Amino acid sequence: MKSREIHLTEYPKGEPGPQHFALAEADIPAPKDGEVLVRNRWLSVDPYMRGRMSGMRTYVDPFQLGAAMEGGAVGEVVESKDPALKPGDWVMSMNGWREAYVAPAKGLQKLDVSALPPQAYLGIAGLTGMTAYVGLKRMIGLKEGETLWMSAGAGAVGSAGIQFAKAMGAKVVATAGGAEKTTFCREIGADAVVDYKTTDNLAKAIREAAGGGVDAYFENVGGAHWTAALEVLKPKGRIAACGMIARYNDAGAQPLPDNLTHIVAKSLSIRGFIVIDHMDMLGEFITDLSGWMMAGKIKARETVREGIENMPGAFLGLFRGENLGKMLVKV
Amino acid sequence: MKSREIHLTEYPKGEPGPQHFALAEADIPAPKDGEVLVRNRWLSVDPYMRGRMSGMRTYVDPFQLGAAMEGGAVGEVVESKDPALKPGDWVMSMNGWREAYVAPAKGLQKLDVSALPPQAYLGIAGLTGMTAYVGLKRMIGLKEGETLWMSAGAGAVGSAGIQFAKAMGAKVVATAGGAEKTTFCREIGADAVVDYKTTDNLAKAIREAAGGGVDAYFENVGGAHWTAALEVLKPKGRIAACGMIARYNDAGAQPLPDNLTHIVAKSLSIRGFIVIDHMDMLGEFITDLSGWMMAGKIKARETVREGIENMPGAFLGLFRGENLGKMLVKV
Repeated sequence: MKSREIHLTEYPKGEPGPQHFALAEADIPAPKDGEVLVRNRWLSVDPYMRGRMSGMRTYVDPFQLGAAMEGGAVGEVVESKDPALKPGDWVMSMNGWREAYVAPAKGLQKLDVSALPPQAYLGIAGLTGMTAYVGLKRMIGLKEGETLWMSAGAGAVGSAGIQFAKAMGAKVVATAGGAEKTTFCREIGADAVVDYKTTDNLAKAIREAAGGGVDAYFENVGGAHWTAALEVLKPKGRIAACGMIARYNDAGAQPLPDNLTHIVAKSLSIRGFIVIDHMDMLGEFITDLSGWMMAGKIKARETVREGIENMPGAFLGLFRGENLGKMLVKV
Repeated sequence: MKSREIHLTEYPKGEPGPQHFALAEADIPAPKDGEVLVRNRWLSVDPYMRGRMSGMRTYVDPFQLGAAMEGGAVGEVVESKDPALKPGDWVMSMNGWREAYVAPAKGLQKLDVSALPPQAYLGIAGLTGMTAYVGLKRMIGLKEGETLWMSAGAGAVGSAGIQFAKAMGAKVVATAGGAEKTTFCREIGADAVVDYKTTDNLAKAIREAAGGGVDAYFENVGGAHWTAALEVLKPKGRIAACGMIARYNDAGAQPLPDNLTHIVAKSLSIRGFIVIDHMDMLGEFITDLSGWMMAGKIKARETVREGIENMPGAFLGLFRGENLGKMLVKV
């Protein structure tokens, strides 16, 4: 069987482009004992992948040049040499950026697709949703009645975070860029939305939207958002930082105004985190998410591209803000 | 009785100077029932007082113009109309910046001067030492065998922090400016010291001194120190931020290079704090400090000026780094 896959051809400096990727074709062998052949159906693209393209070791190893890239993927078992899985079963793996693969059955997570569509496991019910959950519950400790500023509110983590924070009883001010995204943030429950692209004073706009300061800020953006957050946080304010998408591609970063004394004067708490360090919260997450879904509090919104050849474009689109909710590629 | 005292004459913008202070004389009335007359002997000057000179409400109220300023003070009871205190007793209060005062006895803290000299209660055994302790124990959670970078190591909080961290079993890299201060840091136990004034690459110098990265950073400085700290902290590194003296006087702050993505990539934790929010740790602090003192692990070092008229100069000297250890004025 043939499978098409995407290779990284060189480690980009600054913003990556289509020239850094190549479409290749691989022969997929028949599965051996204990293995299964899987046909991927949904592939994930995520901002953190930019870090793996740097060629430097960060919290995950860099992608190898000239080999299939990796990432979240959901697919169907086609052929099985392991009694734990049978053809037609849905599985999740990190064997993304390719149409098909053979792998040991025991490294794959079998999915229950009776309650959720399979691609939800790459988004709101997967690491994306878990990231929003860990940030709100453990890093921020969001409490009922508090006010949260969710940045990148129309993105994958942001749109999950808005809905989770509302389900937790918080007031949510979201930021997003452009009319379509701000409308989307309101649709999924944000109490107030600020279009940062048309605002010349972000801190002032957040204060007005929040009716004062905010108790917590969920950092997905960096740069001017960070600066404004230090301004508008109330005393004892908390920041959860899981990504700073505006910065991933900055070979030469813009300097920031130094307003760090707010950290001391307001006793702020700032916690960066990587979701995989907090998988002990998975059970709690699934319980809460199931309850919120049954109560009709959660909408999973996706932006879908089609075809393996469009993976690089989908990934690059993340940095141009082309997604509403989770960006996925159907293959 | 006459008492000389220092008034603030206007709220300074940027760096304060002698012109913002005035020496005045007040009549001290006789104490009424429940009150005592106290002759101050030691007055504290602290960087946080700059915040109270801004005219804006931060975490404490601003100083009033044309009235005696306030701050930590240790003095002797001269006359008492309350059975709880008798002449000759030593007391601590916030009635500093003046030679004498009358106040209700129940608002004053009686000091045990049998084990410690009275002025230690303004320094290593007072809020200064407590600030170092809370930062290391609660904000950072410093563990035996970890490496701490203590900034402003020759200052009041820094010199306490170096000694406490050593007593906790950590390795300490200190930064300070100039030969006298770096020598002092070594004398009180720092394993390695970097003179930031003669270093053109602070992050590199810290890495070399630490033999790699550091587990924790105690922030007393801000600016280029902060930037270097984000560089040299190891994954899961922690920052305690209780002051940023380089910044208190900046009416127009210098921009900082944006290296905030380290917060996410290394899962850093950053906590600003004000010591008065953590007074529940006082008992634990006194227990640990007494033990360390009896084991000969702690040296209290002070820089002493004489006379109430030299209070403004002592305070202004903090921002020019004129103190080794705690800056005090004897009156």
